[in-house]
Amino acid sequence: MDTTSDDELSHRIAFILEIDKLKEIERRTHLLTSGRRENSAEHSWHVALMALVLAEHADTPNLDLFKVVKMLLLHDLVEIYAGDTWVYDVAATNTQAAREQAGASTLYALLPATQATEFTALWEEFTARSTPEAKFAAAIDALQPLVNHLLTGSPADDGPRPPVAAVLARKQPIGESAPALWELAKRIIAQSAQRGLYE
Amino acid sequence: MDTTSDDELSHRIAFILEIDKLKEIERRTHLLTSGRRENSAEHSWHVALMALVLAEHADTPNLDLFKVVKMLLLHDLVEIYAGDTWVYDVAATNTQAAREQAGASTLYALLPATQATEFTALWEEFTARSTPEAKFAAAIDALQPLVNHLLTGSPADDGPRPPVAAVLARKQPIGESAPALWELAKRIIAQSAQRGLYE
Repeated sequence: MDTTSDDELSHRIAFILEIDKLKEIERRTHLLTSGRRENSAEHSWHVALMALVLAEHADTPNLDLFKVVKMLLLHDLVEIYAGDTWVYDVAATNTQAAREQAGASTLYALLPATQATEFTALWEEFTARSTPEAKFAAAIDALQPLVNHLLTGSPADDGPRPPVAAVLARKQPIGESAPALWELAKRIIAQSAQRGLYE
Repeated sequence: MDTTSDDELSHRIAFILEIDKLKEIERRTHLLTSGRRENSAEHSWHVALMALVLAEHADTPNLDLFKVVKMLLLHDLVEIYAGDTWVYDVAATNTQAAREQAGASTLYALLPATQATEFTALWEEFTARSTPEAKFAAAIDALQPLVNHLLTGSPADDGPRPPVAAVLARKQPIGESAPALWELAKRIIAQSAQRGLYE
């Protein structure tokens, strides 16, 4: 039953219009067919659906998969204000938390208060990696660009190539929640290194 | 606990790679900032998140919101083979069901059998609009392009403009599951007609 006010609906619509901007945030990853750069909205769709597809590989019984999907749908929204931060750009990652926290405050203030609280809590849980759900969401988020990069990357790509050790360190959390996916990730990293995609 | 085989994982990865193509399927809707055409992957992300944001406006107690989100994440996957069908293109909508059914068979065959069955059932439920969850998912899917079109459309857009009566008929299902969203949709349609976006 709809007991909400018109005012709450208009706040929700303002939020829905604002998040359209995530479709304009470009990532480092390239698409498999056309090779154009992926944006953060379509990435968020891909990882949310991947979580459903790969759920059986999570190393946690009774995982709250809906929470994982919710986290993945909103995990990158802060980039609307903070931009996409390349995980191997050390200078950028140093300021990432502060930039993203400011982005979250601005964005979620558009929503009715109870919903703002709920969405902010989901994003903070994802960022803290403190629960099995946050860990599995982070594992899926880390796996997707690895797969695309192996298939589309070229040693001549613009920008510096990360060292293999940095990639292994960054992707190691996959192993914390999904051992089978970590075995896969290590194979992909080895193949990518052999192709000259990492230093 | 991961009791799945490597073979099941490799099938799932094949599916995950194949669905990357949804990011290349162009829709009629334009983005609010750059004005470029939206693709079906970022649309799917937007409507999945909209369902979370607008859930309180659903006219059904105890709606299974996770099922709504799952349906919206996969509702357009058949377009990878069938293409996006403009809802006001009568000739194309006549062949849509057969083309999409063939697409679903091809795509879901990539997955392990139990998952193929689950995903196919979710897509068929969405298509049949036979449950409260499918009806609410369809309402959200119908609402999103209305909002973007009002804000980005121009009477000089390429292609024929649909008649107002066709738009109202097409969008009327919003009212079946979310009366407050239907009041909003009718206001948007009236404003869009006034701007010359419909005949």
